[in-house]
Amino acid sequence: MKIVMLVYPGMTPLDLMGPLQAWSQIPEVNIQFVWKDLEPILTDTGLSIVPTHRFEDAYPAPDILFAPGGSQPAIDLMSDSEVIEFLKSRGASAKWVTSVCTGALLIGAAGLLEGYKATTHWAAKDFLPSLGAIVTEGRYVIDRNRATGGGVTAGIDFGLAMIAELVDETTAMAIQLGMEYSPKPPFAAGTPDEAPDEIVKLVLDKYAAGTS
Amino acid sequence: MKIVMLVYPGMTPLDLMGPLQAWSQIPEVNIQFVWKDLEPILTDTGLSIVPTHRFEDAYPAPDILFAPGGSQPAIDLMSDSEVIEFLKSRGASAKWVTSVCTGALLIGAAGLLEGYKATTHWAAKDFLPSLGAIVTEGRYVIDRNRATGGGVTAGIDFGLAMIAELVDETTAMAIQLGMEYSPKPPFAAGTPDEAPDEIVKLVLDKYAAGTS
Repeated sequence: MKIVMLVYPGMTPLDLMGPLQAWSQIPEVNIQFVWKDLEPILTDTGLSIVPTHRFEDAYPAPDILFAPGGSQPAIDLMSDSEVIEFLKSRGASAKWVTSVCTGALLIGAAGLLEGYKATTHWAAKDFLPSLGAIVTEGRYVIDRNRATGGGVTAGIDFGLAMIAELVDETTAMAIQLGMEYSPKPPFAAGTPDEAPDEIVKLVLDKYAAGTS
Repeated sequence: MKIVMLVYPGMTPLDLMGPLQAWSQIPEVNIQFVWKDLEPILTDTGLSIVPTHRFEDAYPAPDILFAPGGSQPAIDLMSDSEVIEFLKSRGASAKWVTSVCTGALLIGAAGLLEGYKATTHWAAKDFLPSLGAIVTEGRYVIDRNRATGGGVTAGIDFGLAMIAELVDETTAMAIQLGMEYSPKPPFAAGTPDEAPDEIVKLVLDKYAAGTS
């Protein structure tokens, strides 16, 4: 199985790490981390990661094309023609076109969500209709060969669900057990519906100020 | 707040990425990724990450010392005197000594769990008593200034709980909402108790064969 994962400066690395930790355990998998060049990339956490392949060296027809999200850097990348052309090219030949969080804005900007049901980070859903996507409820949304996860940590649920689709449920469950994925969030605060109103306001104010 | 996160070849990056994505949003936080040298480190997923500081340049008295887990590479590191001496040194001065997954074996090998309640990856719990730790049930375990998370994905629960301890619950909830942490695992397979028996056997056989 051939997987191409986009990486870029300012990205949110947990968006990628959830599915990556799961997918890297698929038997005979090959994963490329692709960007314009091979210099280390500073993510939004302060940790730098290293691309393995330039755009031109990425698998021409991967089984999975994946885009992670980010805050302002993801928005900025929507108008980066080199990135969008790359996503268009591989998106046309990939078996699956996928994203987590605001990675959906990137594949959407490449026209790859036109007419597809999709999701993204809760605070970014209003962007999707202008990209031709049909905003759909769900921790992740699968519509034909498009699979989009919600914000950040949704990538773990999305990643395991994709293994069930692409390999089988036994493999997905074994990987879930290896990752000890039996979550127990300390608070009921993971969505705007669950979180207290003052917490939602706090986070929205932070996003509005561009300091997320 | 000063945080020192150990990184090493073959580590499981999601162990670190869960708490990192949460902690990196704490106001005025400074996070160091420390190893023997500053060359990129290949993790068990195929993704390389870049240390920011050598052991000798790490904060002498961090607020948090953190060790992530890994499969065989974590076991091997338990007898690496340079690593263990570093953990002993910073563990003696850190306000909090913490781990996720088999990172507990590393801080344990440095004598930092002697007489403390602790947890680790479910398949590694038998190692803890020989390190003087008291194996305790829980997605994460806090005993005085020791905080240990269970396997891999437990780092997210652990990371958010630590923010509530170190900062306040409002900040923890706001970060949880930003990370959209309202998990919905696709299967009931995240612990040996939840998973079907044949899945537990499959994973234990894989660990026994050293192919995890």
